[in-house]
Amino acid sequence: MTDEVQAPAQEPTPRPHAGDVGIVAPRDYVHPAPFTFRSGQTLPGFTLRYETYGELNATRDNAVLVCHALSGDHHCAGRHAESDPKPGWWNNLIGPGKAVDTRRFYVVCANVLGGCQGSTGPSSTNPATGHPYGIRFPFVTVPDMVNAQKLLLDHLGVSELHAVIGGSMGGMTAMMFAIEYPLFTKRQIIMASTARESAQAIAFNEVGRQAIMQDPAWNNGDYPREGGPRVGLAIARMMAHITYLSDAGMDRKFGRRKRESAGGEAYTFDAQFEVESYLRHQGQSFINRFDANSYLYITRAIDQFDPARAAGSLEQAFAPVQAESLVVGFTSDWLFPPEQNRDIALALLRAGKRASYAELSTDLGHDSFLLESDELYSLVQGFLERNETYVFDFAI
Amino acid sequence: MTDEVQAPAQEPTPRPHAGDVGIVAPRDYVHPAPFTFRSGQTLPGFTLRYETYGELNATRDNAVLVCHALSGDHHCAGRHAESDPKPGWWNNLIGPGKAVDTRRFYVVCANVLGGCQGSTGPSSTNPATGHPYGIRFPFVTVPDMVNAQKLLLDHLGVSELHAVIGGSMGGMTAMMFAIEYPLFTKRQIIMASTARESAQAIAFNEVGRQAIMQDPAWNNGDYPREGGPRVGLAIARMMAHITYLSDAGMDRKFGRRKRESAGGEAYTFDAQFEVESYLRHQGQSFINRFDANSYLYITRAIDQFDPARAAGSLEQAFAPVQAESLVVGFTSDWLFPPEQNRDIALALLRAGKRASYAELSTDLGHDSFLLESDELYSLVQGFLERNETYVFDFAI
Repeated sequence: MTDEVQAPAQEPTPRPHAGDVGIVAPRDYVHPAPFTFRSGQTLPGFTLRYETYGELNATRDNAVLVCHALSGDHHCAGRHAESDPKPGWWNNLIGPGKAVDTRRFYVVCANVLGGCQGSTGPSSTNPATGHPYGIRFPFVTVPDMVNAQKLLLDHLGVSELHAVIGGSMGGMTAMMFAIEYPLFTKRQIIMASTARESAQAIAFNEVGRQAIMQDPAWNNGDYPREGGPRVGLAIARMMAHITYLSDAGMDRKFGRRKRESAGGEAYTFDAQFEVESYLRHQGQSFINRFDANSYLYITRAIDQFDPARAAGSLEQAFAPVQAESLVVGFTSDWLFPPEQNRDIALALLRAGKRASYAELSTDLGHDSFLLESDELYSLVQGFLERNETYVFDFAI
Repeated sequence: MTDEVQAPAQEPTPRPHAGDVGIVAPRDYVHPAPFTFRSGQTLPGFTLRYETYGELNATRDNAVLVCHALSGDHHCAGRHAESDPKPGWWNNLIGPGKAVDTRRFYVVCANVLGGCQGSTGPSSTNPATGHPYGIRFPFVTVPDMVNAQKLLLDHLGVSELHAVIGGSMGGMTAMMFAIEYPLFTKRQIIMASTARESAQAIAFNEVGRQAIMQDPAWNNGDYPREGGPRVGLAIARMMAHITYLSDAGMDRKFGRRKRESAGGEAYTFDAQFEVESYLRHQGQSFINRFDANSYLYITRAIDQFDPARAAGSLEQAFAPVQAESLVVGFTSDWLFPPEQNRDIALALLRAGKRASYAELSTDLGHDSFLLESDELYSLVQGFLERNETYVFDFAI
């Protein structure tokens, strides 16, 4: 425990000996009882694939739930094997001595219900037919994802969440945890998110869905696991990927540079600009790891997310929240722009909650929440460890 | 000529009796000689479909060439029949007593070479095979479009252009007219355009091209005129259409309103939000009027457009320009944003040319150049008529 005292929250830079969580193994939680979705549809049970890093403490109150975005999964830190070329998607934030310090916190991350990385979703086998559910899978909403993850946390013996943290759809998930389980959720960190998508964001998701559903290989959602609407899914991903970056960031990264093989004024429809081959690669690699029906379900859940709608206003939706909140917007995020993040914090404040808003200047667009940035790390670390530090101060 | 004296440029509002050009008929110019493209490829001849409004004067110097954008055509004003539900695409700007006054100017507008609305393009019959050219059509660049239109203007007996005017790709065409035919081009109006697309704009075009080319019905560009990659083309159009609007404009127009038939919390992948059905309609109506191969060729021409590249800088590219220039940017245009329009005017000024930049506040995004706006009309009218008014002043 000495380390914790040596690195109080007042020290804004990441800890000097920050390391990785090492080799990790995903596990499956099989929920053995029926689960009812917001739509009224049910499943006889479900599986969530998840990972944990660090140890649950004796009082079972040091858990940090990490929530992933549309195309993310449960593997947010460490490697599955020494030979893995890349670590989990938030490895820069999570680990011993990092902003989410696994020496202090018990970190849990699960693939969402409706996903395709091991959790039950449309590509799972429907026990009634022996075939994948396809679009007979129940409609999933962000509250459904939250309820399923709460059952996992109960199973793990977590008595309360020290914090829930997520970016993009992960921020919606965090927000919904704080609303649905207010006594359980002590802190939330919402990054690059929104309390309701704009028409433009819905429009982009709809084009992606149409690219999938208009692909003849979609076949009304019935396709073999290794087949399906690969063309449509790749197009959806290429387009969405543009919305995760920024104009300035793309100009910095690619500009109008041409591929070496493209020649000066090549007259061809092959990829000529570097940005073209980059996007083609993004589309192709995505279809090898993501299920097209999951893409439909999860984008629909994101589009439908709108806690203010039923409550009458966002302030009213936030009325039950007990968590302290940190909301982080990024200047170059045009998918869920800073204003929409600021509005979350303002609505929490108007509802009488403790909430802070921070805005970071970046050119990485929506994906900025994955940024390697000491500024972001220290914000997260300071927020997660503040109260613990108070305890130490008090003890002294 | 009396009308002209009664409505001098100092009067900033549109003329009170502004009317339409009425029923118009497109014509075909058949260029009878071989045409060489920038790529070095040739055609034995070509056809440009065009319309004219107003009369060429005795000195043959009152022509205004109107240049269309990616999906536009030669039909920019009036109707082809009384029963036409909609007039030409720039009817609000062009007509007797309007900003581009057809009582004063001889307005010419042609479908670009490579297009699909009557001008020779990839859907035209290749005389060598009896089938459409497909992607055996020569690669088209903006300079090729300009050279073909110059041949049309020569044919029409135009001795000089009073002005060339266009938005988006039409602005690129105007810019290239002023560069390629400096003595011929007396004025240029460039709206919502750019001297070189950013990586993001190239990326969106590339996703559209991939949606078309990955559609099995594209068949390497060989498809029957009534068939082809309709799915891919519709997806390309839906996505592109988002980039022509703005986030704020879409929120004003659609917000998160649901379709009446969609119900409150309908769980379906059918269109639920109004913006979804609007986009689906845009995609479907486009495939009935546009050729997928033309979409590939014209987007490629737009992506390749970069006059500064060969010249070394935009100032050097503009060195030959003799035209007076008006560049108009629109605050909510994020495809070809105001800065990129401002940069055109600045480069003209740095090159020692007469150039003005105006920026209009709108929420209509890139499509703002089609805006119904007295502010825009008076800018255009003032710029087109200024020198003529000087002549009258001098005569008095």
